[in-house]
Amino acid sequence: MPHAITFQPAGRTVTVSAGTSLIDAAEQAALEISQPCGSQGRCGRCVVKVESGAVRRRSTLRLTAEDLAAGYALACQTVVQGDAVITIPPQEKARRTLVTDKTAGRVELPFPYVPAVDQPLQAIHVEMEPPSMADQTDDWSRLKRALLPKLDCKTLTISMPMLRRLGGILRQADWRVTAVVETGAWDRAECPARLVNLRPGFSENMLWGVAIDVGTTTVSVYLVDLVSGVVRAQAADYNGQIARGEDVISRIIYATKSKASNPDANRLEMQQLVVETINRLIRTVASEAHVAEVDIDKAVVVGNSTMIHLLLGLDGSTIRLDPYVTAVNQPPILTAEQLGLIINPGGTVDCLPGVASYVGADITAGVLSSRMNDATDLTLFLDVGTNGEMVLGTADWLITCACSAGPAFEGAGVLHGMRATRGAIEEIWVNRNDLEPSYRVIGDVAPQGLCGSALINLLAELFITGVIDKAGNVNADVETPRVRKGEFGPEYLIAAADETAAGVGDIVLTKADIDNLLRAKAAIYAGFDVLATAVGVDLADVSKILIGGNFGKYINVEKAIQIGLLPDADWDKFHFLGNTAVRGAYMALLSQSARSQITGIADMMTYLELSADNTFYDVFTSALFLPHTDWDRFPSVKALFENGSRASEQPAER
Amino acid sequence: MPHAITFQPAGRTVTVSAGTSLIDAAEQAALEISQPCGSQGRCGRCVVKVESGAVRRRSTLRLTAEDLAAGYALACQTVVQGDAVITIPPQEKARRTLVTDKTAGRVELPFPYVPAVDQPLQAIHVEMEPPSMADQTDDWSRLKRALLPKLDCKTLTISMPMLRRLGGILRQADWRVTAVVETGAWDRAECPARLVNLRPGFSENMLWGVAIDVGTTTVSVYLVDLVSGVVRAQAADYNGQIARGEDVISRIIYATKSKASNPDANRLEMQQLVVETINRLIRTVASEAHVAEVDIDKAVVVGNSTMIHLLLGLDGSTIRLDPYVTAVNQPPILTAEQLGLIINPGGTVDCLPGVASYVGADITAGVLSSRMNDATDLTLFLDVGTNGEMVLGTADWLITCACSAGPAFEGAGVLHGMRATRGAIEEIWVNRNDLEPSYRVIGDVAPQGLCGSALINLLAELFITGVIDKAGNVNADVETPRVRKGEFGPEYLIAAADETAAGVGDIVLTKADIDNLLRAKAAIYAGFDVLATAVGVDLADVSKILIGGNFGKYINVEKAIQIGLLPDADWDKFHFLGNTAVRGAYMALLSQSARSQITGIADMMTYLELSADNTFYDVFTSALFLPHTDWDRFPSVKALFENGSRASEQPAER
Repeated sequence: MPHAITFQPAGRTVTVSAGTSLIDAAEQAALEISQPCGSQGRCGRCVVKVESGAVRRRSTLRLTAEDLAAGYALACQTVVQGDAVITIPPQEKARRTLVTDKTAGRVELPFPYVPAVDQPLQAIHVEMEPPSMADQTDDWSRLKRALLPKLDCKTLTISMPMLRRLGGILRQADWRVTAVVETGAWDRAECPARLVNLRPGFSENMLWGVAIDVGTTTVSVYLVDLVSGVVRAQAADYNGQIARGEDVISRIIYATKSKASNPDANRLEMQQLVVETINRLIRTVASEAHVAEVDIDKAVVVGNSTMIHLLLGLDGSTIRLDPYVTAVNQPPILTAEQLGLIINPGGTVDCLPGVASYVGADITAGVLSSRMNDATDLTLFLDVGTNGEMVLGTADWLITCACSAGPAFEGAGVLHGMRATRGAIEEIWVNRNDLEPSYRVIGDVAPQGLCGSALINLLAELFITGVIDKAGNVNADVETPRVRKGEFGPEYLIAAADETAAGVGDIVLTKADIDNLLRAKAAIYAGFDVLATAVGVDLADVSKILIGGNFGKYINVEKAIQIGLLPDADWDKFHFLGNTAVRGAYMALLSQSARSQITGIADMMTYLELSADNTFYDVFTSALFLPHTDWDRFPSVKALFENGSRASEQPAER
Repeated sequence: MPHAITFQPAGRTVTVSAGTSLIDAAEQAALEISQPCGSQGRCGRCVVKVESGAVRRRSTLRLTAEDLAAGYALACQTVVQGDAVITIPPQEKARRTLVTDKTAGRVELPFPYVPAVDQPLQAIHVEMEPPSMADQTDDWSRLKRALLPKLDCKTLTISMPMLRRLGGILRQADWRVTAVVETGAWDRAECPARLVNLRPGFSENMLWGVAIDVGTTTVSVYLVDLVSGVVRAQAADYNGQIARGEDVISRIIYATKSKASNPDANRLEMQQLVVETINRLIRTVASEAHVAEVDIDKAVVVGNSTMIHLLLGLDGSTIRLDPYVTAVNQPPILTAEQLGLIINPGGTVDCLPGVASYVGADITAGVLSSRMNDATDLTLFLDVGTNGEMVLGTADWLITCACSAGPAFEGAGVLHGMRATRGAIEEIWVNRNDLEPSYRVIGDVAPQGLCGSALINLLAELFITGVIDKAGNVNADVETPRVRKGEFGPEYLIAAADETAAGVGDIVLTKADIDNLLRAKAAIYAGFDVLATAVGVDLADVSKILIGGNFGKYINVEKAIQIGLLPDADWDKFHFLGNTAVRGAYMALLSQSARSQITGIADMMTYLELSADNTFYDVFTSALFLPHTDWDRFPSVKALFENGSRASEQPAER
């Protein structure tokens, strides 16, 4: 029986059948409710108020007895049983402006670029005799006859959409055209060249491509002039899927959730959301460089395996379920039309190969871009985002693993954590004498919270100054008004309400926050540890530590070593490389050889599944301390304490 | 300014802007008006009556002054200028039942079929270890690892739709599946094998394909069991495009006509019409053989070049315009999904190669099926439909041409002509003494008209009995009430109104009909003549004359020679092969070798463009007589006259 559900304050009423979830009813009413956990009923962010009417709460997780008494319900866990009036509270809007001055530095050419050698796309001028009674060759054979002698291959293929436009373009152009042809990289088999585009007349020497990094949080696009090899424009924005889950697991859960109307609806929605984000960014870079979108003939895409699955509309459910396998690590090459990208519909979309469910193309591309695959000495590569992926090896061998660090370093799971946007404290120091903090805020405004780099800073500073001990407990004997008893136990006050942004109140770091940060850093260090043990090397023997990702770009090595997040190596061994993923895609876009090297990297990597590794839990537990149970692994930190730290205790022997 | 147009007798009113054609307004009102000439204003079949209101007639071809005075107008040539009331007269319904007993004879295996050698599709049982923590290989690599060792190739490709279903099928089937793989024929380049289908479990030895002949008038489908090679069901039906043009030229004109709403609308409509016809036939054969449509993994398609262009949604406009070139003679291979066929969406659709605008895949496939390409002696192949296509040659060389015979032999352009359906006179004799006719009707019912074979019969009988002379004029001195003066000049009465079907009236053959038939037969004979002259051979030296097409199946050789349609050869040199086109497609569906032979045939054929041949008009003119100006080319007919024909005059020397 249908029931009328009225949503306030919008005042919209929809008719739905009994058993419909409030989230589906709201969607039917075209009203947005955030679902950061992907409709799992875990995050509590989809809370709504039932003003009147009959509903059934399947789960009330995160709601208190008072909440329930006041009528609150989780929209994703509550179903309609009769007519009802529901109030949707104001939805938190993610701040959708990335700090572009931090993402749009000039990108250097990664290698001397020789298009004739490197570039699989070629723009070729072709002139043909028009058809005549004496020569009735069909249009496609006529073009091939003129074009093939200019190519290093025997066969040329054409897609149906291109074939449908062929005759019109040839005649409009009076049989003088510029053909864009792709050789080599089109298929991994020994395949023929492919006609990608046909432009009337002899167009100037012009070829465009885009390198795309689909991050769980951020999507980045480079627009590349394939004639000079130069990045002409770049843009980044939040991945439109964020509203449907903040981490990969939530997104997979949302995408695989069946709707009665269409079991594929959520999967298709997720695909559309990220395609829309990419298209918006393509529009931005194209407009900035005064390039028509349809003149972009190729896209190279990287991302973690979940992001690539969702982009391709693949079912990612097996990624999150034991034994954690993907549908495909090396996806087939597509045309832009198949994905709905707004570049030339016949243009190539090449999703670079990944290795496993949690080591994706962002890592293989990152390894290429970091040149780790050329290293003669033992090298460690690390990319920290929501997950931490790491690779250990040399030019001859590579071993990799992924650890679920969780989103603590992205500011989630921390009371006053936030992303590195305007208003975030990004650096912080604690005075060793009076334990007073000083900090720097992105945008020089009143602070709203702490981003990842500040959290690492603060944890190290509190440890070094003795405010917290090696287990992360607040020392009882510390005398400062900054340390106080808060709602969730002991906490350290960073900024009082009068100095923070309006509505933020006091900014503090709680014991629960510290525990979350310890778990995150321990997961990453344990990953290093297991990799090194697996191949029988010592982390101390690593000659280079390459750190990719925007996270790495801003962290303070000294502080990261002090908390035991990074191995205790000389600071000059660390190299911060920024977004290695998009740069790897950029290299693959420029060069056939770089493209095949990435497949080589993917094929060569040995993947270690940490959840199947019996030693992982032990090394993780040992790493839950500051900097580590085994103090000798961190000689520089040990020395600091021995030389006059205010630390109240020396770390215990294990 | 919008105007209201009311259509009677339906009583539907639509609002359209000034300048809209009545045909578009009727379409908007969802009312059908026949357009056999493709909206060119030539056929007069879209006539409607303007009861009241303002319209402008852009053309009034085929309408008399009386018609105009009575308010008649051609819907395709008349545009709205104000509100109007229009009556659509009852539309002629094509009889949409083919005489199936004539098309559904048992089809023999064309050669000993050894699937392991011949068939590019293979169904392979594969069993895999399920993924585990010890083996997290991705689904696609896992399947390839198990499947590739069972194939003779190194690489296997997969489409996105197949990849999206992969993980689900593998798990549902508990990692025991039957993979359908296509090798070799998938791409003309040296391409990898392709995964076409995946069925859960070890399905019984089952593989299905369809061979499809898209004729201008008739579409034929064979359902083929690819395990035994046997045709399990066949069906034929009129091509759904007929309502939009009876010949290829009308259809191209209709398809390329731009609509304001969407310039591609007509092209897409034509594609959809033929796809619907094919899908209906696939449903018929699948149901007859108790096969699920999605278990059909391949379609091989033949047709003339226009039919293939329209099926693929290609712009055919250049086919009808000097210098008559196609967009493509060897179309790319597609998946069923790309065309909208209801077989397995990932199944292969292979449109066989043609040679030129008017010599299509129906002819290359016909040559293969006739085995002309193996002939050691000079052989002539002929396929007569709306056009006549012919091929002369041996295993070593082939020359081909097409002549626009027009649709006279299909019953069009002849006052009482009709297709070979129920009610058509298909055989007719004229008594040499009293000049009275006797005839046989398809279905043994009262006659409604004459089909092609009867027209040839009758023309020969009237000539042999002296009713008409060699120029096709009715002899003035013939004494029979059957010859009379009709509305359109002299005519021969075949059946009076009292013996014909209700509403038909007298069935006659007029002088205009005779002229049309003479032009048709002359065009075909002239084609033979030009081909033979071009290669310097004599038609008398031809050792075999192979006749394809349903037309050929029922004509009387003796009569066809007597009118000079076919060369005067011994009757045992003639072989009637029926639908060679669909049988060629059937062979290509069975065998990779047959498939490559067809490409070989297409590549080997020399195409002679008759409209560019200066001698064509002369030889055509000479062939406009019965049997020919040069009597010596038809010694058997000459002998007949010399040995006591009632012919009133001997043919003149040229």
